[in-house]
Amino acid sequence: MSNRKPEFAPLWGLDVKDGELRIGGQPVSLLAERAGATPFFAYGRDLMTRRVEELRTALPERVHLHYAIKANPMPALVQHMAGLVDGLDVASGGELLVALDSGLEPETISFAGPGKTDAELTQAIASGIVINMESHGEMERIAEIAGRPGARPKVAIRVNPDFELKTSGMKMGGGSKQFGIDAEIVPQVLSRLGDLDLEFWGFHIFSGSQNLRADALYEAQEKTLELAAGLAKHAPAPPKMLNIGGGLGIPYFPGDKHLDLTEVGDGLARLLPTLGPEFDDTEIVMELGRFLVGEAGIYVSRVVDKKESRGQIFLITDGGLHHQLAASGNFGQVLRKNYPVAIATRMDGEATESVDIVGCLCTPLDRLGDRMELPKAEVGDLVVLFQSGAYGLTASPTAFLGHPAPIEMLV
Amino acid sequence: MSNRKPEFAPLWGLDVKDGELRIGGQPVSLLAERAGATPFFAYGRDLMTRRVEELRTALPERVHLHYAIKANPMPALVQHMAGLVDGLDVASGGELLVALDSGLEPETISFAGPGKTDAELTQAIASGIVINMESHGEMERIAEIAGRPGARPKVAIRVNPDFELKTSGMKMGGGSKQFGIDAEIVPQVLSRLGDLDLEFWGFHIFSGSQNLRADALYEAQEKTLELAAGLAKHAPAPPKMLNIGGGLGIPYFPGDKHLDLTEVGDGLARLLPTLGPEFDDTEIVMELGRFLVGEAGIYVSRVVDKKESRGQIFLITDGGLHHQLAASGNFGQVLRKNYPVAIATRMDGEATESVDIVGCLCTPLDRLGDRMELPKAEVGDLVVLFQSGAYGLTASPTAFLGHPAPIEMLV
Repeated sequence: MSNRKPEFAPLWGLDVKDGELRIGGQPVSLLAERAGATPFFAYGRDLMTRRVEELRTALPERVHLHYAIKANPMPALVQHMAGLVDGLDVASGGELLVALDSGLEPETISFAGPGKTDAELTQAIASGIVINMESHGEMERIAEIAGRPGARPKVAIRVNPDFELKTSGMKMGGGSKQFGIDAEIVPQVLSRLGDLDLEFWGFHIFSGSQNLRADALYEAQEKTLELAAGLAKHAPAPPKMLNIGGGLGIPYFPGDKHLDLTEVGDGLARLLPTLGPEFDDTEIVMELGRFLVGEAGIYVSRVVDKKESRGQIFLITDGGLHHQLAASGNFGQVLRKNYPVAIATRMDGEATESVDIVGCLCTPLDRLGDRMELPKAEVGDLVVLFQSGAYGLTASPTAFLGHPAPIEMLV
Repeated sequence: MSNRKPEFAPLWGLDVKDGELRIGGQPVSLLAERAGATPFFAYGRDLMTRRVEELRTALPERVHLHYAIKANPMPALVQHMAGLVDGLDVASGGELLVALDSGLEPETISFAGPGKTDAELTQAIASGIVINMESHGEMERIAEIAGRPGARPKVAIRVNPDFELKTSGMKMGGGSKQFGIDAEIVPQVLSRLGDLDLEFWGFHIFSGSQNLRADALYEAQEKTLELAAGLAKHAPAPPKMLNIGGGLGIPYFPGDKHLDLTEVGDGLARLLPTLGPEFDDTEIVMELGRFLVGEAGIYVSRVVDKKESRGQIFLITDGGLHHQLAASGNFGQVLRKNYPVAIATRMDGEATESVDIVGCLCTPLDRLGDRMELPKAEVGDLVVLFQSGAYGLTASPTAFLGHPAPIEMLV
């Protein structure tokens, strides 16, 4: 029995046996041996599969699920996800190649991102994936590049909506943005599109991400569908695809709660029938990254030193912000808050010690846990950071201070 | 003539000819051709050399200068710095190898950092460099590891002082810290050190970094020397080295001013003679990273798209926070502020356009300049971020979103 104070976000898919945390049915200490070194990331196949199943159960059947590779582009993980979802979204020429390697049909892969280079647009056209266009200028470049080879580029319009997703971790739309084409000028861009040798594929309307409130998501989805319906009237053809974005958040910090998936699903079930007949053959796509893989991954480092400094106990690990920048509070957060943390082999221990958990880097920014109440840990123990499946390793400065790259494993 | 508003930090070593920015005597557009691609970093050899010369002129002759590799570990740059300074400081086993490759004597290389692994301590002992010990536990581990091979480890004590460097960008000492051994328990650690087969090398007392005020530095240095004098009484031998840290800052943001080096030098010239005779043979070391190389480097990206969204103009470049995280405001800052920026080939242009400069990443965090007044730029223009020589590339999440790694060049 643990008397740990409720200082963590709620965990999902937790598997503890004989006092030790397991992932993919394997004890974390065994995985450390399999990795051959610490630190390492482990991503649970079954957790990703369960998450997709939960979504399929909650959402209307009509909704197609896409995985946004940027959340975690590890090739083995992308391959696993490709077997579960209906499509992939990429944000660079590099991710495009990973997505194609999965074997999914090119037309189920879409490419969004401001600042696509001519080389990347050429890749996208040559491979036949769908390009979510971010500006009028980008559309003209696509048409010009496509003039050379043969294929007719599949293009969707990424819309910068005239609203934003409220209470979101990250706003991706509304106001002046580098993303997408302002909703009010989309009609004139669609008109120009009709003159070019481009295949109109649909719309991508993405208002924000990392949201934990079903009511805020409902409100944004309602406005998204209204906006799409209005814009479709100006399109040269009915949209084959309507990507309504994602925005589904996961709990990271104390006080966060899991999103109510049933409420999200019920909301969409009410909203989708309001779409007119011009959307009858339209694939409705939800594009999710973090929500599919974030809670499926852990980051494990080992306690290298334990010391007391003026009354405060420090667990110093061989990990750090060079692998998990967001957990240090240095990626998008204003105030640092604690990710959920555990000592892998002391899951049944009582939380009797208040510790600071820091990484091995020679910078005060390298802080993974502030005054956390944990079972008493010693040098050699394994420290687990949860919610590390998305925006972990690739969103971190791995070369910082010249430490070895960590291992990544699918289990 | 530019009428640019004073919205930047003051620049140093700026070289403009025929309206184009140059570094190392080369126009930036020529360097873009030499690099073969954008984005790239260019570091000016002459700027680093000048900076070290300025320091040598200002500081008392007795002060030895060390370069802290973590600021920029590019091997060619480290090699250049090794020819200018008296020693190198490393923060990992990886940096240790880069430092040794420079050919400097091992005893002029020191290794600081909490969470050194046994493997790293073995490297340090085997190569004969100086280990700045961060805890009592680390000292015991060093003694145990050294029991196996032959060499007698050179160890210095990193002290967590009982004061901090005021108005510093980053506090590295004072209060409870993961760095160093609390000043008040250093005497008992020194006593234990005398019983172990370790060669006492001296002290490392580092209270903070990135400070732009000579008076704050003077105050910290005064306390540092007092503390060192008190601790030396408990040492098994006179210190061979006293590393007083660095702390010298560079201007990044509007309102920042260059540090007055003459004032820093004069202060040290007054302070150093107060040290007692037990320091007569002690090397006084200043350890500097950012101050030596930060202003010597630029980050160059190319405008890929220019668009207006609801009245605001965006320059979208092929660079971004994956190469220059700190400039996006996501590394240690609480509020994002603008790094100095220029359009390379329009240095003589009037600042007639207010633009947001963003990178190519599909995240709203990827912002390199907010509402900056700049000469009117177009697609194809080169955007230069100054103050990019330190904590740029290696302190950034290069794998984020799967874009190619940028080029680094010494010019």
